[in-house]
Amino acid sequence: MQHPENDEQYEGLTVNAGVDRLPTVNPYFKPKKRTPRRDADYYVAGILRGDMTILAQAVTLVESNLPADQLIAQKVIEQCLPHSGNSVRVGITGVPGAGKSTFIEALGTELCKAGQKLAVLAIDPSSERSRGSILGDKTRMQELSATDGAFIRPSPSAGSLGGVARKTRETIVLCEAAGYNTVLVETVGVGQSETAAHSMVDFFLLLQVTGTGDELQGIKRGIMEMADGIAINKCDGSNVEKAQVARTQFKNALALFPPTESGWKPYAVTCSAVEHTGVMDVWNMVEKYIEFTKKNTFFTRNRTRQAKYWMYETINQHLLDSFYHNETMEEEIEEAERQVLGNKVSSFVAAHELLDKYSTLCRQQQ
Amino acid sequence: MQHPENDEQYEGLTVNAGVDRLPTVNPYFKPKKRTPRRDADYYVAGILRGDMTILAQAVTLVESNLPADQLIAQKVIEQCLPHSGNSVRVGITGVPGAGKSTFIEALGTELCKAGQKLAVLAIDPSSERSRGSILGDKTRMQELSATDGAFIRPSPSAGSLGGVARKTRETIVLCEAAGYNTVLVETVGVGQSETAAHSMVDFFLLLQVTGTGDELQGIKRGIMEMADGIAINKCDGSNVEKAQVARTQFKNALALFPPTESGWKPYAVTCSAVEHTGVMDVWNMVEKYIEFTKKNTFFTRNRTRQAKYWMYETINQHLLDSFYHNETMEEEIEEAERQVLGNKVSSFVAAHELLDKYSTLCRQQQ
Repeated sequence: MQHPENDEQYEGLTVNAGVDRLPTVNPYFKPKKRTPRRDADYYVAGILRGDMTILAQAVTLVESNLPADQLIAQKVIEQCLPHSGNSVRVGITGVPGAGKSTFIEALGTELCKAGQKLAVLAIDPSSERSRGSILGDKTRMQELSATDGAFIRPSPSAGSLGGVARKTRETIVLCEAAGYNTVLVETVGVGQSETAAHSMVDFFLLLQVTGTGDELQGIKRGIMEMADGIAINKCDGSNVEKAQVARTQFKNALALFPPTESGWKPYAVTCSAVEHTGVMDVWNMVEKYIEFTKKNTFFTRNRTRQAKYWMYETINQHLLDSFYHNETMEEEIEEAERQVLGNKVSSFVAAHELLDKYSTLCRQQQ
Repeated sequence: MQHPENDEQYEGLTVNAGVDRLPTVNPYFKPKKRTPRRDADYYVAGILRGDMTILAQAVTLVESNLPADQLIAQKVIEQCLPHSGNSVRVGITGVPGAGKSTFIEALGTELCKAGQKLAVLAIDPSSERSRGSILGDKTRMQELSATDGAFIRPSPSAGSLGGVARKTRETIVLCEAAGYNTVLVETVGVGQSETAAHSMVDFFLLLQVTGTGDELQGIKRGIMEMADGIAINKCDGSNVEKAQVARTQFKNALALFPPTESGWKPYAVTCSAVEHTGVMDVWNMVEKYIEFTKKNTFFTRNRTRQAKYWMYETINQHLLDSFYHNETMEEEIEEAERQVLGNKVSSFVAAHELLDKYSTLCRQQQ
């Protein structure tokens, strides 16, 4: 059976192209070896004793689309679930150029120095096309990768946001069972990946840069109100004053927002990931938030709600996909859209006609 | 056949309670008479010649849950659709106490004076329980009710938000066909009713009051970023200075937001609905926005998208309702939730087990 990982096996420059019928292999390219699959108990035991290599192998199973792999993966997750939950989960978002990778490297290095075990994950549904736009290149986090106690995993590149998000959420379970007590989930500042990340973390951090104009372009509206805190990065060199002005501006803006559900009042701090300054101020904010929400029980209520959210989200996605990805329906839907846009029929009548057709179709198919 | 409207027939104080077996009726309470239903053509002709009474009757059909009424209503809507669309649709939201009704009365009176035909509708899914918390009491808009060219209709009280929203959206079609060129949709500052209103209007106005603290309580996070403009009401008497400070604050906050999809830059103005000052400044903002978005074609693109949105929203709601309101499934879902919250099974496995059960159930029922 061909394992998805093997797709990359013959990548790279081809030498002697066309000389023989064997696949041409770049001799400087070392193909990944497929690790033979073991049974669930093997992975669970490895994870519970904190074996990073086995954890990485188990995450590969979680990310695999092969039914055989998924069967093992789900058993592993089930056995890890009772050992999960003991971590602080932080989502980090920001526009491209806000310095997310550098910030995570700076923060992560500090946290590991302080003895914490840190897992860095990512949600980026576009990573397949862009070949890992975030975290894909571990060399961008060279220092952190080499640090004891840090586990870095690029975004699963599995197409749909739902799929990517599921894999990241399940990876959190495995990391926590392996003893990682801090989980950072990086996400790009566009699309729906923030909502997904927001729905699996305790604290959601927005990384901003100075300025009020074009710098903000690219970040989705609504994300600012989703944030539990804002860190204004690049507060260094000639930028210090601008960053401090921005901090005041964001502080004033946040004060205008209605109270959060948690009762927490989000605020803004400045930092410089490059100079490693202020990074722990950001972390202090996270810790204060955790203390605050644990005290008023929002922390637990939120996690409970998130677990339910993912169950319902999975159900909803499946129910809708069955309708919209039905080949016959796709044509009908197109036609209905035309009718609605041509003012021939109301949106509601069109919807009900489609539903009737779908229900007839389901009966016929059985 | 009992018409829903008749439920209210025996309301009010009961006199001679228990004296006889006839329902006791409050002699001071005048029961609503049910208007006999006519065929679709009758209503369409009435609407197209701008007959307010017939328009009101047709809206009653749209709001009715009786299948026979719905059949006529949908025919009427279909015939009105080609005559709809020629209006400016404005959504208005704000916390209770922001003075929405007074503001609408002030603005509406001015608009009617200027010769516009104005329809005032509402979306308030809670109106059944609270007996019409918004617009329910027309006496709150006494002046406007008596103004020529104004058509005021309280929120349909039909339970689910989806149902209420559908009825309001269909009522817009009828009003536009009747020649109303300005439609205001009022909504309460809580819950999901804003999203619904936002999805059927061209311009979404947030009515605020001064202050940055408790006054903002009750408005949902995210609404500020949804607004195309902010009006700070109650800029009168000793409040003028505070309102102007608030305006600057909101102005600064809005500048921090990323650009809107329309390219429009939302801004804030002050007004006093009680003193009728600044109300037309708000309207100027709306007009500027309409001009701006018509020029860059966002206006049309947005309306197209809204029509599609309502078709898909109706489909999605129906597909999900069939699953969640299935009696057998309800029990299964409860059990699955318990399993997920007890860390016995992952959210994703639980979801797929439920979906399998549902699919078996559907097969059996056929």
